[in-house]
Amino acid sequence: MNNYSQPGAPGRARVGVIGVTGYAGLELARLLLGHPGVTLAGVFTSGREGAGARPLAERAPAFAGRTDLECVPLSLDAVRAAALDLIFLATPHEVSLEWVPRLWRETAARLVDLSGAFRLRDAEEFRRWYGQPHTAPELLAEAVYGWPERYPAPIAAARLVANPGCYATAANTALWPLLASGAARAAGVICDAKSGASGAGRSLREDLHFVELESNCKAYGVATHRHTPEIAAQAGLPVEEFTFTPHLLPVARGILATCYVPLANGAGAAELEALYRRAYDARPFVRVRGERLPELRDVTHTNFCDVGFRVREASRQAIVVSCLDNLLKGAAGQAVQNMNLMLGLPEGAGLP
Amino acid sequence: MNNYSQPGAPGRARVGVIGVTGYAGLELARLLLGHPGVTLAGVFTSGREGAGARPLAERAPAFAGRTDLECVPLSLDAVRAAALDLIFLATPHEVSLEWVPRLWRETAARLVDLSGAFRLRDAEEFRRWYGQPHTAPELLAEAVYGWPERYPAPIAAARLVANPGCYATAANTALWPLLASGAARAAGVICDAKSGASGAGRSLREDLHFVELESNCKAYGVATHRHTPEIAAQAGLPVEEFTFTPHLLPVARGILATCYVPLANGAGAAELEALYRRAYDARPFVRVRGERLPELRDVTHTNFCDVGFRVREASRQAIVVSCLDNLLKGAAGQAVQNMNLMLGLPEGAGLP
Amino acid sequence: MNNYSQPGAPGRARVGVIGVTGYAGLELARLLLGHPGVTLAGVFTSGREGAGARPLAERAPAFAGRTDLECVPLSLDAVRAAALDLIFLATPHEVSLEWVPRLWRETAARLVDLSGAFRLRDAEEFRRWYGQPHTAPELLAEAVYGWPERYPAPIAAARLVANPGCYATAANTALWPLLASGAARAAGVICDAKSGASGAGRSLREDLHFVELESNCKAYGVATHRHTPEIAAQAGLPVEEFTFTPHLLPVARGILATCYVPLANGAGAAELEALYRRAYDARPFVRVRGERLPELRDVTHTNFCDVGFRVREASRQAIVVSCLDNLLKGAAGQAVQNMNLMLGLPEGAGLP
Amino acid sequence: MNNYSQPGAPGRARVGVIGVTGYAGLELARLLLGHPGVTLAGVFTSGREGAGARPLAERAPAFAGRTDLECVPLSLDAVRAAALDLIFLATPHEVSLEWVPRLWRETAARLVDLSGAFRLRDAEEFRRWYGQPHTAPELLAEAVYGWPERYPAPIAAARLVANPGCYATAANTALWPLLASGAARAAGVICDAKSGASGAGRSLREDLHFVELESNCKAYGVATHRHTPEIAAQAGLPVEEFTFTPHLLPVARGILATCYVPLANGAGAAELEALYRRAYDARPFVRVRGERLPELRDVTHTNFCDVGFRVREASRQAIVVSCLDNLLKGAAGQAVQNMNLMLGLPEGAGLP
Repeated sequence: MNNYSQPGAPGRARVGVIGVTGYAGLELARLLLGHPGVTLAGVFTSGREGAGARPLAERAPAFAGRTDLECVPLSLDAVRAAALDLIFLATPHEVSLEWVPRLWRETAARLVDLSGAFRLRDAEEFRRWYGQPHTAPELLAEAVYGWPERYPAPIAAARLVANPGCYATAANTALWPLLASGAARAAGVICDAKSGASGAGRSLREDLHFVELESNCKAYGVATHRHTPEIAAQAGLPVEEFTFTPHLLPVARGILATCYVPLANGAGAAELEALYRRAYDARPFVRVRGERLPELRDVTHTNFCDVGFRVREASRQAIVVSCLDNLLKGAAGQAVQNMNLMLGLPEGAGLP
Repeated sequence: MNNYSQPGAPGRARVGVIGVTGYAGLELARLLLGHPGVTLAGVFTSGREGAGARPLAERAPAFAGRTDLECVPLSLDAVRAAALDLIFLATPHEVSLEWVPRLWRETAARLVDLSGAFRLRDAEEFRRWYGQPHTAPELLAEAVYGWPERYPAPIAAARLVANPGCYATAANTALWPLLASGAARAAGVICDAKSGASGAGRSLREDLHFVELESNCKAYGVATHRHTPEIAAQAGLPVEEFTFTPHLLPVARGILATCYVPLANGAGAAELEALYRRAYDARPFVRVRGERLPELRDVTHTNFCDVGFRVREASRQAIVVSCLDNLLKGAAGQAVQNMNLMLGLPEGAGLP
Repeated sequence: MNNYSQPGAPGRARVGVIGVTGYAGLELARLLLGHPGVTLAGVFTSGREGAGARPLAERAPAFAGRTDLECVPLSLDAVRAAALDLIFLATPHEVSLEWVPRLWRETAARLVDLSGAFRLRDAEEFRRWYGQPHTAPELLAEAVYGWPERYPAPIAAARLVANPGCYATAANTALWPLLASGAARAAGVICDAKSGASGAGRSLREDLHFVELESNCKAYGVATHRHTPEIAAQAGLPVEEFTFTPHLLPVARGILATCYVPLANGAGAAELEALYRRAYDARPFVRVRGERLPELRDVTHTNFCDVGFRVREASRQAIVVSCLDNLLKGAAGQAVQNMNLMLGLPEGAGLP
Repeated sequence: MNNYSQPGAPGRARVGVIGVTGYAGLELARLLLGHPGVTLAGVFTSGREGAGARPLAERAPAFAGRTDLECVPLSLDAVRAAALDLIFLATPHEVSLEWVPRLWRETAARLVDLSGAFRLRDAEEFRRWYGQPHTAPELLAEAVYGWPERYPAPIAAARLVANPGCYATAANTALWPLLASGAARAAGVICDAKSGASGAGRSLREDLHFVELESNCKAYGVATHRHTPEIAAQAGLPVEEFTFTPHLLPVARGILATCYVPLANGAGAAELEALYRRAYDARPFVRVRGERLPELRDVTHTNFCDVGFRVREASRQAIVVSCLDNLLKGAAGQAVQNMNLMLGLPEGAGLP
């Protein structure tokens, strides 16, 4: 892992966002424009979008009157011209696979990649789940998995942070304390997750058309979703023993993960709560709610991940519910939290 | 107008739907499959869609187990092969402009066109509002405007019925009795209408993406919407004196039209109610609700158009609210109602 | 079980609905008013509501113009006066516990109870899950569990039918063929179910307030929901080994149940599909969708229960998704289906 | 008007919220907890709620981990004990009518009342629209109407600020520049407004039950809504000539007002845009969008009021659309903006 020393800039860091017109990119822009410790100095459309600079406010009217920033088509020259200390890539993994190595080589900027391109350790596992070879395997060892509750020091020192998936953050916040402590068995864990539509991105798709999704709910990606190996790796589960079923909810934002966890020993509710508190009480953005199960509305429009649980004695099982806003703690908020750690800023700076 | 004599088929009429995969087309197929008096004998994709026959149930899983019908790409041969007595065109007006004349000439089938292609009397007015010349002006005089509450006899005798627009049905149900009777003044009428998203059709559009429309509401088509001249013509208003503002609601189905109508004389609530009752009490699908203003939920999933009103004495004004389900009374339901009149079936046959 | 011979009335059966102003009651009234084989001859508010007869259309404006029926406060005299052959109780279980025995004794009507009062065989189990003693245990043996896909003959002969719970119908449609055949193991089955808000009834509750539920999702009743023993009993699962977690969705109607089923032997997808087809292909209202997982929108506003599944080989597990409209196949529709069987009418009469 | 001199407190002002458990109260608490210039030192339930102090986070789980504040039942002693410099009343007008005079007399705190109790100048007009006598008419002359875009200096000096209604802010932002300049005629103005459900408050009501409002839309309060005289007074319209029709939308937050304004002279779009820019370009929270009509989603979760318009030449009419978040610019956000002016803080401090 690269031990990166922070640039000694006498002032605010200059940051940029590639892929700013997607939902995560827009949320990043919103957070960074209001951030007290950094300057949003460049926003770029990813290579896939139309040419020509256009005001951000034209792409997203909610920015009207808030910024004069122009979305610039992505090019190395444009990125260099912005003189950025840190760059967020809010891009599909195909774009990140191409641009992270390029930016690593051709700039000195630190990188926070919101895609799945650098989250797995193993190029072969990447190929299996993403259906394409990993074209920059040498950077997999450089990337730090950007889960701030677990890896704050490596994140602070990293040049390249792989920001976790939205489902992965929800599931792992629920699973890790139980598995790492030995309270849970590694075989037979099930995560039934429900997500709002912004998690699927801004590209038009028939199943995300309002008339189709309103009043609907469906499972998708059963046994094939790409967050499965990411969750398994971080939670310490054999991937073939772990069942992950995402569902699409008729809401814009939010993930609620219901996890069914076989318990390994006689631990009761008090012991489980202690495990969660030990893991998270010192961390600003995870709230341990005990037996009060959290709901989407407790966390949407915040950077919190809430976790609660019940122990079912008859079947020696914990039912753990975690939830978060997929655009904040599940994407842009967590990315800013990682940036704060990387730049030595207060962990919660600029976060709601 | 063509005085059409009904085919003496010894049995159920055979009907078909062109453009069956759009929202109005699917709703038509659903109604016709359950209709006691006709046989749905052919469903066609419009020329714009992919080639090859595919089961309807594959295009719309709600039909699974209900029908073996296959969607066939539109061609004259395919239509002729189905031996149809009556054909619905649930197609964009561009497609109807091309196919209505062709079917008129090349088949003997009666036609119900759900597009705006044949709703206006005047080819020049069509050109002004639709931005293209009318390529079959000779059929404008043949087409009967398919408003069953007003033109039941001409519809029964028509070969070509122009099914009204969804907004137009809502607005005209509210306006016509007041204007035809002289109770309202023709100048200064305003219709502020709110519609669900299915009215905009099934084509993917960014503003109809779930994340964009959920929790949203917006005006659109201000002073330019194509239903404006249709409403004005039927209500007897000079189009330049009539203000129509449609809005998009975050619901799948339904139109609610709030009309502001200057009163011409001293008529009070009782007189207005009498006018509405005279117009509609003998008609099965308009419910006069008096001073109890109707709501979307009173009419969605039904073929009713409900109308209620208040008289504001201080400003000598009626505020009239009408609502309907844009896919039923606003499109497919009204089309079936017209078909029932054309085939001599009970007006409500097959309608919820 | 009572072997009930059908009343030899020379004409349509007269039916009534107690508890007509709740969501299931309104849906029953809607279905029965359009039913070709019965006459809706009496609708009653349950004892808990205000006194005085009021038009049904006043309680629910969607009925305006469709019926002159008046909601009558529930009393034995009022029920007797309506001369009913069959009575639906769309009432809370407390009301059913009181009124089913009374109607059993004091009238000759056949009864379809939509509450949970008579679904369990065992009075002690009722007490444990419903938190109150069963006050009519002698009728538990008389009641036939109204699952028409499984018990059509007993239902046809029954005087008292206990209409299944909405979650129970969804879960058992998914579970029964796998468990009855021995393809699934009885231990470790999990059902993660998601329901629309109408399942919670029409009583005002803060968590069902629009502002609270819109954009929300939450688990509730974890390990305590009253449908748990009903599912376990019908599926043949030991209740302590069965995990059931209901969730509330921001939709009005619909249940989607995701079931995680450990497989007992080497059965693959083809064998499972064969089991489902054997169970349901002859039944009109269950659609086996194979590996195409059903979605809420495939079934809402219909009486279908759709079921699809995937086999996950690595963990020898079936992931089965079933869904239905909780007010139709989950309540009123299934009740009408049961009535049809009881009255010797076509099973699908009057159902959409 | 009272010329109030600011308390010379050496440090942050202490502020409190009465009625903190309603939607506006919760939003106020959220804003004030994150405000850089004040301390939220007391939160009170209004007299109508249950007794006993309870943590705010228990009343609203979204506050979990963010504050230890306890909701205290409202009493003069409790308010005095909190030593508040400024108090918000997020209470029904009946409660404000009772408590504003009491706090005026018995404390030295400055007051921002979010109810309609002190928005009208005239006690008789209050009686007519609110259906009860005004019990503190002597304070009507003391109250400053808290519209910061128009009355910044009087607000800064006021002891009592009457925070405008949500509809009134939307409508008046659209109407005032046109009427004050003489560009619009005072007779015949119509405002057709659409509001999310949180505007109706947190009290349970059947029409705000999720199942009732989801997929619904309705007009209400036609010609009787209490914001009517408030709009007329501020816009300079004779109340009997002004038509205001509010509608309920199936969204949680947001108001969109569509105003139909007869133009008095030959002013075109450029002149109108200049009038709006003159009125608002120096103000931080109104965005003049010109001919690009704003949508709800441009402003929800912000304190902006956006305004756009079209000129319809044929009828010499402006169609003006304004929108805002009813809980922010329409209530709590505007109240904080007023507080900022009163305390000499930057106008946008603590606002998103």
